[in-house]
Amino acid sequence: MAQKILIIHGPNLNLLGEREPEVYGNFTIDDINNELQKAAKEDNIDLEIVQLNGEGEIVDKIHAEKDKCSAIVINPGAYTHYSIAIRDAIAAIKIPVIEVHLSNIYGREEFRQKSMIAPVAAGQISGFGKNSYILGLKAAIGIIKKPH
Amino acid sequence: MAQKILIIHGPNLNLLGEREPEVYGNFTIDDINNELQKAAKEDNIDLEIVQLNGEGEIVDKIHAEKDKCSAIVINPGAYTHYSIAIRDAIAAIKIPVIEVHLSNIYGREEFRQKSMIAPVAAGQISGFGKNSYILGLKAAIGIIKKPH
Amino acid sequence: MAQKILIIHGPNLNLLGEREPEVYGNFTIDDINNELQKAAKEDNIDLEIVQLNGEGEIVDKIHAEKDKCSAIVINPGAYTHYSIAIRDAIAAIKIPVIEVHLSNIYGREEFRQKSMIAPVAAGQISGFGKNSYILGLKAAIGIIKKPH
Amino acid sequence: MAQKILIIHGPNLNLLGEREPEVYGNFTIDDINNELQKAAKEDNIDLEIVQLNGEGEIVDKIHAEKDKCSAIVINPGAYTHYSIAIRDAIAAIKIPVIEVHLSNIYGREEFRQKSMIAPVAAGQISGFGKNSYILGLKAAIGIIKKPH
Amino acid sequence: MAQKILIIHGPNLNLLGEREPEVYGNFTIDDINNELQKAAKEDNIDLEIVQLNGEGEIVDKIHAEKDKCSAIVINPGAYTHYSIAIRDAIAAIKIPVIEVHLSNIYGREEFRQKSMIAPVAAGQISGFGKNSYILGLKAAIGIIKKPH
Amino acid sequence: MAQKILIIHGPNLNLLGEREPEVYGNFTIDDINNELQKAAKEDNIDLEIVQLNGEGEIVDKIHAEKDKCSAIVINPGAYTHYSIAIRDAIAAIKIPVIEVHLSNIYGREEFRQKSMIAPVAAGQISGFGKNSYILGLKAAIGIIKKPH
Amino acid sequence: MAQKILIIHGPNLNLLGEREPEVYGNFTIDDINNELQKAAKEDNIDLEIVQLNGEGEIVDKIHAEKDKCSAIVINPGAYTHYSIAIRDAIAAIKIPVIEVHLSNIYGREEFRQKSMIAPVAAGQISGFGKNSYILGLKAAIGIIKKPH
Amino acid sequence: MAQKILIIHGPNLNLLGEREPEVYGNFTIDDINNELQKAAKEDNIDLEIVQLNGEGEIVDKIHAEKDKCSAIVINPGAYTHYSIAIRDAIAAIKIPVIEVHLSNIYGREEFRQKSMIAPVAAGQISGFGKNSYILGLKAAIGIIKKPH
Amino acid sequence: MAQKILIIHGPNLNLLGEREPEVYGNFTIDDINNELQKAAKEDNIDLEIVQLNGEGEIVDKIHAEKDKCSAIVINPGAYTHYSIAIRDAIAAIKIPVIEVHLSNIYGREEFRQKSMIAPVAAGQISGFGKNSYILGLKAAIGIIKKPH
Amino acid sequence: MAQKILIIHGPNLNLLGEREPEVYGNFTIDDINNELQKAAKEDNIDLEIVQLNGEGEIVDKIHAEKDKCSAIVINPGAYTHYSIAIRDAIAAIKIPVIEVHLSNIYGREEFRQKSMIAPVAAGQISGFGKNSYILGLKAAIGIIKKPH
Amino acid sequence: MAQKILIIHGPNLNLLGEREPEVYGNFTIDDINNELQKAAKEDNIDLEIVQLNGEGEIVDKIHAEKDKCSAIVINPGAYTHYSIAIRDAIAAIKIPVIEVHLSNIYGREEFRQKSMIAPVAAGQISGFGKNSYILGLKAAIGIIKKPH
Amino acid sequence: MAQKILIIHGPNLNLLGEREPEVYGNFTIDDINNELQKAAKEDNIDLEIVQLNGEGEIVDKIHAEKDKCSAIVINPGAYTHYSIAIRDAIAAIKIPVIEVHLSNIYGREEFRQKSMIAPVAAGQISGFGKNSYILGLKAAIGIIKKPH
Repeated sequence: MAQKILIIHGPNLNLLGEREPEVYGNFTIDDINNELQKAAKEDNIDLEIVQLNGEGEIVDKIHAEKDKCSAIVINPGAYTHYSIAIRDAIAAIKIPVIEVHLSNIYGREEFRQKSMIAPVAAGQISGFGKNSYILGLKAAIGIIKKPH
Repeated sequence: MAQKILIIHGPNLNLLGEREPEVYGNFTIDDINNELQKAAKEDNIDLEIVQLNGEGEIVDKIHAEKDKCSAIVINPGAYTHYSIAIRDAIAAIKIPVIEVHLSNIYGREEFRQKSMIAPVAAGQISGFGKNSYILGLKAAIGIIKKPH
Repeated sequence: MAQKILIIHGPNLNLLGEREPEVYGNFTIDDINNELQKAAKEDNIDLEIVQLNGEGEIVDKIHAEKDKCSAIVINPGAYTHYSIAIRDAIAAIKIPVIEVHLSNIYGREEFRQKSMIAPVAAGQISGFGKNSYILGLKAAIGIIKKPH
Repeated sequence: MAQKILIIHGPNLNLLGEREPEVYGNFTIDDINNELQKAAKEDNIDLEIVQLNGEGEIVDKIHAEKDKCSAIVINPGAYTHYSIAIRDAIAAIKIPVIEVHLSNIYGREEFRQKSMIAPVAAGQISGFGKNSYILGLKAAIGIIKKPH
Repeated sequence: MAQKILIIHGPNLNLLGEREPEVYGNFTIDDINNELQKAAKEDNIDLEIVQLNGEGEIVDKIHAEKDKCSAIVINPGAYTHYSIAIRDAIAAIKIPVIEVHLSNIYGREEFRQKSMIAPVAAGQISGFGKNSYILGLKAAIGIIKKPH
Repeated sequence: MAQKILIIHGPNLNLLGEREPEVYGNFTIDDINNELQKAAKEDNIDLEIVQLNGEGEIVDKIHAEKDKCSAIVINPGAYTHYSIAIRDAIAAIKIPVIEVHLSNIYGREEFRQKSMIAPVAAGQISGFGKNSYILGLKAAIGIIKKPH
Repeated sequence: MAQKILIIHGPNLNLLGEREPEVYGNFTIDDINNELQKAAKEDNIDLEIVQLNGEGEIVDKIHAEKDKCSAIVINPGAYTHYSIAIRDAIAAIKIPVIEVHLSNIYGREEFRQKSMIAPVAAGQISGFGKNSYILGLKAAIGIIKKPH
Repeated sequence: MAQKILIIHGPNLNLLGEREPEVYGNFTIDDINNELQKAAKEDNIDLEIVQLNGEGEIVDKIHAEKDKCSAIVINPGAYTHYSIAIRDAIAAIKIPVIEVHLSNIYGREEFRQKSMIAPVAAGQISGFGKNSYILGLKAAIGIIKKPH
Repeated sequence: MAQKILIIHGPNLNLLGEREPEVYGNFTIDDINNELQKAAKEDNIDLEIVQLNGEGEIVDKIHAEKDKCSAIVINPGAYTHYSIAIRDAIAAIKIPVIEVHLSNIYGREEFRQKSMIAPVAAGQISGFGKNSYILGLKAAIGIIKKPH
Repeated sequence: MAQKILIIHGPNLNLLGEREPEVYGNFTIDDINNELQKAAKEDNIDLEIVQLNGEGEIVDKIHAEKDKCSAIVINPGAYTHYSIAIRDAIAAIKIPVIEVHLSNIYGREEFRQKSMIAPVAAGQISGFGKNSYILGLKAAIGIIKKPH
Repeated sequence: MAQKILIIHGPNLNLLGEREPEVYGNFTIDDINNELQKAAKEDNIDLEIVQLNGEGEIVDKIHAEKDKCSAIVINPGAYTHYSIAIRDAIAAIKIPVIEVHLSNIYGREEFRQKSMIAPVAAGQISGFGKNSYILGLKAAIGIIKKPH
Repeated sequence: MAQKILIIHGPNLNLLGEREPEVYGNFTIDDINNELQKAAKEDNIDLEIVQLNGEGEIVDKIHAEKDKCSAIVINPGAYTHYSIAIRDAIAAIKIPVIEVHLSNIYGREEFRQKSMIAPVAAGQISGFGKNSYILGLKAAIGIIKKPH
């Protein structure tokens, strides 16, 4: 049976396409999801994709899936910069979590240049627009397919 | 048809009247709402008023109303000082958002003297008790009625 | 006899209209003053309006008027961010002082995001252009007309 | 009728036993709850115990119980370090709130060494593993049983 | 033979009862000591209790007792906030050390909100007045009675 | 002929007696001046006393008197904390300048705990109410009467 | 003719395999280069690969290749954290530059958690070991193959 | 008719020659003015030269001359480091303003190493003694004579 | 019977005369004590004078004398800058404590520019050499002789 | 024989004209050099001009020329902000060194607003484009031609 | 007669051998002292060796020996990081003082990376275990034997 | 065959003797090298001595010698304070590296009081002039001759 990877879109990502397109591009969340599904299929991976605006909801989802998925690819959106609760949820589970960002967070406001998530993520990819997700998915697959 | 303005009361504002009355006054949230309704009626504005304790819930509400209202007047309460998620939600939408505070946040504890919301709000009004809301409503009406 | 409110325009506000119009708008100080006079008349308030570039001059003016006015509406301009002398003058008097700003000071350079005046002001209004003054005048009237 | 004390386990505490056992020990949340129930019975106290991952949910719960309990013992988990909303909820109510931590938060990462909750709590107990909860319960009972 | 626990009262604690009673309460150090002796007797523990104003004296005492006691309960008073020498003495010995405070140090001046001792203590209890010592003694007993 | 000492009262000191009497006492500036004149007479010193609200005016006065007086006793008021211009004026002249404060500036708000003037003053006296001026005058006399 | 991408290994990367293998893994720089060549061939890309320890040398190399390559993938090693010269070189050229890191720099010492390069890079990938380079190469190809 | 350039000497510069000559040199303000007049004559420029100790006075002068001069050369003295009012006056006008300093402000006390003026000046020249003014005048002439 | 005032010389003050005379002057501690005795006699005050190098010793001495003296004049020396224990001892007693310094601590190294003692002292006098003690004694007498 | 002045262009200045022309202008390094040569000829000065990207190379060049030139005019580029090695090289030699910048570094990113070089340079000129170099050369000539 | 050098072991060094041996090694203070005596004998130096836990005691000892020894070698232990009293004692005496540390303090916790003593010591040696003392003794001998 | 130790003199050390002799002494680099050779011969050690101004060159040299030497004694000069590249090179190799400084870096400018190298060095010796090198060599020999 195919391994499953969970994709979590954090807060406000449902507004992609109409939200500050000069920063985030003018594709929609559905555009990203379609490309992700296509890329996952190539590697015979099942994807579950959710978009959640609440910090507690994201923690709940991570808990719920920690034994059902092989990896998580998450764009924590605004929570990247201050959610210790999501950080703790990621640190508490055993599957690898990949942090992705559409924009290059290091070229933006100072308060966006710090990630609370990165220290406990397996790795981080930022700045490639939609492609950040695809690269993040590839990175996740690379880790879970690595022979031990 | 009348234009609609959304009023959002953030966390703990439901406790007004019993919560630290020396800071917040001893009127209740209903007192504020009654005055707001009266003031709105004068300008032929429809009001929707909600009180929400959750950060994600506030983000959800902003998303849900962004195309149905002409403006938002928000007292983000404690989230004023750290919620990048609410800030991003406000930055992502096109209608003007007015930030109001009952107390003068600049005369309080240091961690309350910084607003994450103010840089993306149309403007900010703080320190006039109940009247902050009425002035905020007037400011909102001033913006949406301005001829272009 | 009508109550009097003092309006103080701080440094450089005399240049309004030609000074960085993308920040401050392209109305002049006379435009603001006309609107203020009109609004004051509605509430049967006498206005005295001054524009002063000197920190000591503003302190002197506050002292001179502290027993003749019922309230002060001040846009301290650049002095907002460092004048402890004006702050002390405001703290030393008994009538309410309302701080107003044309632009949203919290969306500008970091050194403009701190107000030395706000902690001793009755309240603060920022970001509504000319309307900040009108709202500030209304807030002042709201305070002095409040029954005790 | 017995007095009631509310126990709130904050985010991620449901994962106890499998989450970084070298930090948090390898007992489960049920082990803690059993010991708490036993200790409460000795003093003829009713306990209500909840585990909540959402910041807004915790605020909601505190509001809901503020008139039904005599005290609250809370381990705010990650929210300890940044939730002004929970802090405000605690400051807004009249019953004593005891803050407890399994690990010694002052011997951990720098961002965990600051508690936003402690200044408004009745007191704080940290570092004794499961026993932190028992001591916290005892401290709460000590306060509510104190003759006036 | 009964196990011995050392209680150390740090600087100025001999003035309890006359020193800022609104912060520290109006019981005396003897009141605390009596309650401690009573509580120790219940668990068949011998107590030695000292009050010391000198930093070096506290270090000397810790060294002298490190092989004679099973645990130390210390209120380091002002030294809490800057004594690396006492911290090092505690880190250098093998018996558990419990840090206690009468007042909630996290609700006081900023320079009192940092404990140099906490990172090397077994745990910390603060804010429960006299009861902080009793809870600290209980915590110490809990640790030394834990089966290995 | 008697030597002359200049006394400068900085901004807002003319309001003494009505300004925050719990901080500054309820004597007036005339009370201070009378005591100063009496004390000066004992040592056969001529006093010139001025009160100035403007930073530039204080600089001008220091320049004007630098060759006519033997010493200056100054309470720079709010300018204490940020006026490099007054600091430079004091550093530029050869006569000794004594800095005095009615209140203990080190026990007040953080921004009042730093003096830009102290590093270039001969010495500083703070916290003794009216007596700060008398002690400052004595200190000045002590310096100018010291045999070389 | 095939497009060319330049790979720059920064200082100390020639020691891979013997340098702190618990941080960097125990593969060698040749292992990375072989995988890069294989991956490049799949997309018909020519690679030039260099390893340079000098800051000025890296600037020189970027200048020399800026018109000959379509993109650069760089692991700036230690220079990541302080080289404004390399940052300026990257900002001065028109081709996209991808920053990659073997280890997750955000989970390491504080001085390694800031990248001077990231704000001017097209994007950043960190934490995937050898795979960071492969993903970086893919990201570069994704950018240069994007139709305009 | 000749173009006019305004020279503003800020606070305390009238004391040149007697003020800390090891820092500022032992020439007087007249010496500087003579050299400036001579240099201006060579380029057929009219000079107006003022020395002002008051912050508000400098703002007033800049306003008064903004339409009569082609450029301003200013040594803001102590105000360099904190006057946002002068900064705003300079930012508000259209003619170029050149900031000059006798001493190298970057080799002095830390509080003198930050210029509030520099970000809005056309350029800055510091450290060449009297020659800083001459170079500043030349720089101003260079800008106003530049063909468009 | 005469009132008693305690003079405490803190650490290293016994070395006066041979210790960095360019900072502290070349008089000895005995010279100061002689002048103090003479000045005390004029006002019919008994003096007790001690010099102590230990922090705990100073705390002990303050405790021992708190009910026998009418005031304390203390030069806390190096402990000025970090001793919270001495600060607490001073805050805990009811008699006024005057802080004195030979040198102007605000014109010295940065770590000497902060006094932990000043916020709890009645007032502070610094920079007048030996005369700081005499002025401090006068200030103390002024306070204890003030009619209530 | 003519005196020689060394001009050092630091890293990335060879890209002038194609590098961010909105910041640096669209003239080339050759344009600057031609103007410098012409200006030097007027004063009968020999120029040597180099452009170097390496920090060590710049140190080497300064060492090599320290006894052959009368002055150095240097634009240290990015190294301005962090090279203590170049700072030390300049401090170690006896000839005057003038620091120049094309752009006004004080109006740019925060990390560019600090110069490590300025404290040891004879003076600094920034913000006048090409003219910064010409003014820097004039300043250097002014210093070396000053009679002693 | 042989010159004398004083060796001071600061707080907690008496516990060497049993205190955190992975940091400090498993030799005892006697082992160090034996090696020091042997090394001193080679150079015909008399040693006095003390171990002191109290800050005041160390100050007292330095005072007592300042005219009897030719140099001091001190390991100030925890006091390294905050004792201005010991710093002042060292600065007040004329003989050279060498600071030594067993462990490399710069590779430890941040609060141990700053020495208050180093700026007034002749030099510092850290990180060589027991050998730090021997090298410190050699360094001291090197200084006192240097011909003048 | 004799073991080899590498001595690296960092940037600007070739100028010793003429560079700020009041800081560095007036001996030359050859004087140091002669003393080092003599001291090495006593212990039958071969020395290689280099002086390098470039950061990359120092990294290259460390790489080149890491398998040929038994230890390195390095004075990193200015690079001490910011070179993470040299730090990484030292951390990457297995032989011990001793950091030495002629002057006491902790008594100098603030930016020189932090060493990036010390945390990864075996130990550090600073402040003994030429003798720092000899002691560093001895320390290195002590480490490599230690029986395992």
